[in-house]
Amino acid sequence: MSIEVVVLAAGQGSRMKSQLPKVLHPIAGKPMLAHVLDSAREVNAEALHVVVGHGAEQVQSYFGDEADLTWALQKEQNGTGHAVMMALEHLAESGVTLILYGDVPLIQSNTLQALIDIAAKEQLGLLTVNMDDPTGYGRIVRNEEGSVQAIVEHKDASEQQKAIQECNTGILAVPTAKLHEWLPKLSNDNAQGEYYLTDIIEMSVNDGMPVETLQPEFAEETFGVNNRLQQAELERWYQGRLVDGLMTDGVTVLDPQRLDIRPGHTKGVTVGRDVVIDVNVVLEGEVVLGDGVYIESHCVIRNAVIAPGTHVKAFSHIEDALVKEGCEIGPYARLRPGAQLENGAKVGNFCEVKKSIIGEGSKVNHLTYIGDAEIGQGANIGAGTITCNYDGVNKFKTVIGDGAFIGSNSSLVAPVTIGKGATIGAGSTITKDVEDDKLAVGRGRQKNLDWQRPTKK
Amino acid sequence: MSIEVVVLAAGQGSRMKSQLPKVLHPIAGKPMLAHVLDSAREVNAEALHVVVGHGAEQVQSYFGDEADLTWALQKEQNGTGHAVMMALEHLAESGVTLILYGDVPLIQSNTLQALIDIAAKEQLGLLTVNMDDPTGYGRIVRNEEGSVQAIVEHKDASEQQKAIQECNTGILAVPTAKLHEWLPKLSNDNAQGEYYLTDIIEMSVNDGMPVETLQPEFAEETFGVNNRLQQAELERWYQGRLVDGLMTDGVTVLDPQRLDIRPGHTKGVTVGRDVVIDVNVVLEGEVVLGDGVYIESHCVIRNAVIAPGTHVKAFSHIEDALVKEGCEIGPYARLRPGAQLENGAKVGNFCEVKKSIIGEGSKVNHLTYIGDAEIGQGANIGAGTITCNYDGVNKFKTVIGDGAFIGSNSSLVAPVTIGKGATIGAGSTITKDVEDDKLAVGRGRQKNLDWQRPTKK
Amino acid sequence: MSIEVVVLAAGQGSRMKSQLPKVLHPIAGKPMLAHVLDSAREVNAEALHVVVGHGAEQVQSYFGDEADLTWALQKEQNGTGHAVMMALEHLAESGVTLILYGDVPLIQSNTLQALIDIAAKEQLGLLTVNMDDPTGYGRIVRNEEGSVQAIVEHKDASEQQKAIQECNTGILAVPTAKLHEWLPKLSNDNAQGEYYLTDIIEMSVNDGMPVETLQPEFAEETFGVNNRLQQAELERWYQGRLVDGLMTDGVTVLDPQRLDIRPGHTKGVTVGRDVVIDVNVVLEGEVVLGDGVYIESHCVIRNAVIAPGTHVKAFSHIEDALVKEGCEIGPYARLRPGAQLENGAKVGNFCEVKKSIIGEGSKVNHLTYIGDAEIGQGANIGAGTITCNYDGVNKFKTVIGDGAFIGSNSSLVAPVTIGKGATIGAGSTITKDVEDDKLAVGRGRQKNLDWQRPTKK
Repeated sequence: MSIEVVVLAAGQGSRMKSQLPKVLHPIAGKPMLAHVLDSAREVNAEALHVVVGHGAEQVQSYFGDEADLTWALQKEQNGTGHAVMMALEHLAESGVTLILYGDVPLIQSNTLQALIDIAAKEQLGLLTVNMDDPTGYGRIVRNEEGSVQAIVEHKDASEQQKAIQECNTGILAVPTAKLHEWLPKLSNDNAQGEYYLTDIIEMSVNDGMPVETLQPEFAEETFGVNNRLQQAELERWYQGRLVDGLMTDGVTVLDPQRLDIRPGHTKGVTVGRDVVIDVNVVLEGEVVLGDGVYIESHCVIRNAVIAPGTHVKAFSHIEDALVKEGCEIGPYARLRPGAQLENGAKVGNFCEVKKSIIGEGSKVNHLTYIGDAEIGQGANIGAGTITCNYDGVNKFKTVIGDGAFIGSNSSLVAPVTIGKGATIGAGSTITKDVEDDKLAVGRGRQKNLDWQRPTKK
Repeated sequence: MSIEVVVLAAGQGSRMKSQLPKVLHPIAGKPMLAHVLDSAREVNAEALHVVVGHGAEQVQSYFGDEADLTWALQKEQNGTGHAVMMALEHLAESGVTLILYGDVPLIQSNTLQALIDIAAKEQLGLLTVNMDDPTGYGRIVRNEEGSVQAIVEHKDASEQQKAIQECNTGILAVPTAKLHEWLPKLSNDNAQGEYYLTDIIEMSVNDGMPVETLQPEFAEETFGVNNRLQQAELERWYQGRLVDGLMTDGVTVLDPQRLDIRPGHTKGVTVGRDVVIDVNVVLEGEVVLGDGVYIESHCVIRNAVIAPGTHVKAFSHIEDALVKEGCEIGPYARLRPGAQLENGAKVGNFCEVKKSIIGEGSKVNHLTYIGDAEIGQGANIGAGTITCNYDGVNKFKTVIGDGAFIGSNSSLVAPVTIGKGATIGAGSTITKDVEDDKLAVGRGRQKNLDWQRPTKK
Repeated sequence: MSIEVVVLAAGQGSRMKSQLPKVLHPIAGKPMLAHVLDSAREVNAEALHVVVGHGAEQVQSYFGDEADLTWALQKEQNGTGHAVMMALEHLAESGVTLILYGDVPLIQSNTLQALIDIAAKEQLGLLTVNMDDPTGYGRIVRNEEGSVQAIVEHKDASEQQKAIQECNTGILAVPTAKLHEWLPKLSNDNAQGEYYLTDIIEMSVNDGMPVETLQPEFAEETFGVNNRLQQAELERWYQGRLVDGLMTDGVTVLDPQRLDIRPGHTKGVTVGRDVVIDVNVVLEGEVVLGDGVYIESHCVIRNAVIAPGTHVKAFSHIEDALVKEGCEIGPYARLRPGAQLENGAKVGNFCEVKKSIIGEGSKVNHLTYIGDAEIGQGANIGAGTITCNYDGVNKFKTVIGDGAFIGSNSSLVAPVTIGKGATIGAGSTITKDVEDDKLAVGRGRQKNLDWQRPTKK
């Protein structure tokens, strides 16, 4: 059976007050529309039809290289029924079609599968939720046997119908053949002059096709986003789900309300045993945290692998880096793209490492910039050391051998190689290679002079 | 019609356990009393009478230069009626008088206006709230027609009266002429020996003047602060309101519970379109964020203008600074007072900029201190550069020309000028001016020596 | 009367998915079992018997040197009754025995005392809680007079019994003589093949000993931890209690939900008057904050004394340090173990101080590493200064006299002494002592040269 999905993503979202089309606004680092498409992919939809309108170019451009998408343009927004009509020509003749919404981002695939299962039995599968305050929503009207008869909009509802708490979510699954049959019959002969998709409920009833309802595991799956408050609300709910997942996997999270996980388009965070994550940590992209990794408070980690036993201290910032076992990082350490720490390496406070290897057990402890460098094992890089990797136009490499000792406040002017076991005197500027085990000094000689302190001008 | 306000601000606030008078404790960076006064000003009160007692000098000194305030001293705290009596001589003969409280800080001006409108019709306007648990509060007793008859204190209430949920907030508006008539009649013939302002309700009823009640939009408007828990509760509620306002204006706030906005006495935060604010950001004073400004997590920004397209990375600290368009700041960048970044400038990790201009497109990327400097366009300031602006008593200026390249770990001893296109060799100490396009080097020559490593002592 | 406590701590806690035994997992920095033992000590228990099983060695090793503990090994987990049997031989013949659980960590001592008081009157004291949803819990069944008759497990409960909301917590106090009498009579003739401690309720009733129930002040006292979600929930609740305590003591806490206090095994945080703590501060171990101390946002403080009037700015990290009165620290300052700041000292951004004294009024303001140093009064340490305290194997001391001025980017190679009033020229490497009031310079002389900029390779 062919499963197809139509996602309505043409709305303007003017209450977002944004130049970005609404469906491109993110939840957990991924556009809302991408959440919907990814859930649809989990139920093995054969074709994903996206109906775009406002900001159509931006939306298509964002998803441009995704092969399973087809695009339908809705030039004017004349209602949900009209939107689905735009995609009708792309749909197969039979099978099941799911109708989803680009601004209802957190629908889960198990909910979609259950709707598909209903429609696969030649029924219309309708997703509903019970609302404490249903004001404004379309009510699900049932007959005495409990069968759905119609959806009545709030403004058209009788007092009795207004008391109904079960509401339409707009999400539904329908045998595709029926869509072909019903959609051309929709009328816009109503106050708004719009084609309502919900009218197919009545058509289904009239055709003798049962309408079966389903309620999602979480009401939030059906929440739409029309402004930034609603976006923030869903962001928080989704964060709660992701964090609960980590805790269930055995992570100690000091405050579940203060951990942010933003997988974006990646698979997100993978953890070993006995990981601890303190408050106010932000994890973005694909992050792997090995057994016993300890992340202290106020750290930002993006796309990084951190191997077992490593301790990341407070205020650290790690991006596109590889940290092997038993390292110590921070506080206030910044690992930039291409940083690679071998086992037991240390990078301490106010240190920046970019596109460099820090060898096993080597230490970069204080106020240091290491860029485009290869540091061997057991080296000690003194406080204030700078690898001068840039001459204003080109970047050059610094090589530091095993066991080298770089004195504090040294400037290593690349390209330069410091030999194994070599020593650099504090305060030196090193422009020439240093052989193994040699001492290199490049600094002025100290003179102590008489001196009159300056006075206040 | 003359509108006057009497604010009771004489209480000790002993449960605050503070040396600061209670009404000077802040919400969102502004003293509670100032919140009340500012709301009163929004309804165009002609005169603001503040009744002070405990800590009177501190309170008057804080507001000393505000011309629309008159002060009344309540030497002994003998009840709310007694407090208002202290201001009576300053009140006009007619018009409307509002009674407010310095420790009930978040009353909104629309609520005050509605009370004034009631009193303007020769009625007593009384603000009430319905409490789920009214224990301890004065109950609003009404007759069969629903007209207010009296306020009965909890301890004096019958069982039937204790079931009343509508409570007195103490906030009221009254025709001023009536205050002159009623207040002298107040009696302290009660258990506490105090003069209760609430007794005027009964006087009003007896005089045939209707008592009209009003309920505020938010119950929190009537919450008083007697200890730090209540202060924290109102701080949080007020933060929620401010943040909701930003989101409604179109700001993406990653976690509304983790953004702090503290306007203090300024107009607070102004935003363009599509601003994003990540978690744990603190915005203090007057902050302008242009279109598309992105503030990453864990940033503190005070009194700053940040122009469109600028990206502020995590852990940045910006104070009294001007940042123009398309700049990149941080992570871990500190802009101190007088920092000015021209379009497209970059200030990176562990960099501090004070009272300096960073020219268009210039880069200060790593571990640098720039103080009292003027940097032209397209300059590159190497890692570890220090402008030595201070000789222990005086501060001097550093000028760096367009396109200059300052090698890493350089010390620029001010006053000094580096010409356009000039280059400073890494590790140099520069004490004399450098002409345009020249290379200046001031460092020792490297020697590589044989060397015996020190041994463990 | 002899009070003894049996703590059941043998469970595996497989849902924690941890290599650490469950009862060693911490709340507020202290293992759950230690919380229980400390509460038991507050009621002056004479003997604390801990029944261990899974991870017994790890648990015993953690508490190894605590003299008031006796250990009982439960090799196989055959129910709560079986667990208590393991400790039976260690119990006195008379007195009162409390039964507690190593994974129910936050029981308060006043609750324990109340249970003891019941049992002291030859009654069985049983702690119960009323649950909105009691599903899964043992119900407290009472007779018409309201006397407890039995505890019925959920699966054995009639429909009528299932409606009972009062549930067993497992925590109880019992005359020790009765434990000796009853425990040997427990049977494992049930579906699980386990010995249930709750069976003693019925024995008590049959013996004519009254069962008196008690409910705790907070339901959270009886919450057990079986997974990381429950651990996080109790961590948060406990944090709320600690923070409320600080606010009641008169601390302004900008956001009670974003302050973490982790006393661990210490007495925690002690405060003076008018302390302010901004958002996202973490206080660990024993921390003393004097009158008027202001802690800005995003600070981590461990085991430190901070004297009155000191201002700690954002992003500071303080550990095992002593800060005297009126100091200014941060933003981005790191005080490491052994840092001592005398009155009015300043340590500014991107500065690290380790095992050093910063004298009265001395300033270490920018990008500096001070290690193993003694700095006198009124000294000024320029930006980028490094004390080179380490030669790769040994650490040496730097002494800087009163009023010394250290130029920026200086390297002070220890052991070295800078005299009082001495000046170090910017960019100098100092390897020899400098006498009082002298100027020392150790740097290359500047040359300005013609120069061809490098070109793109």
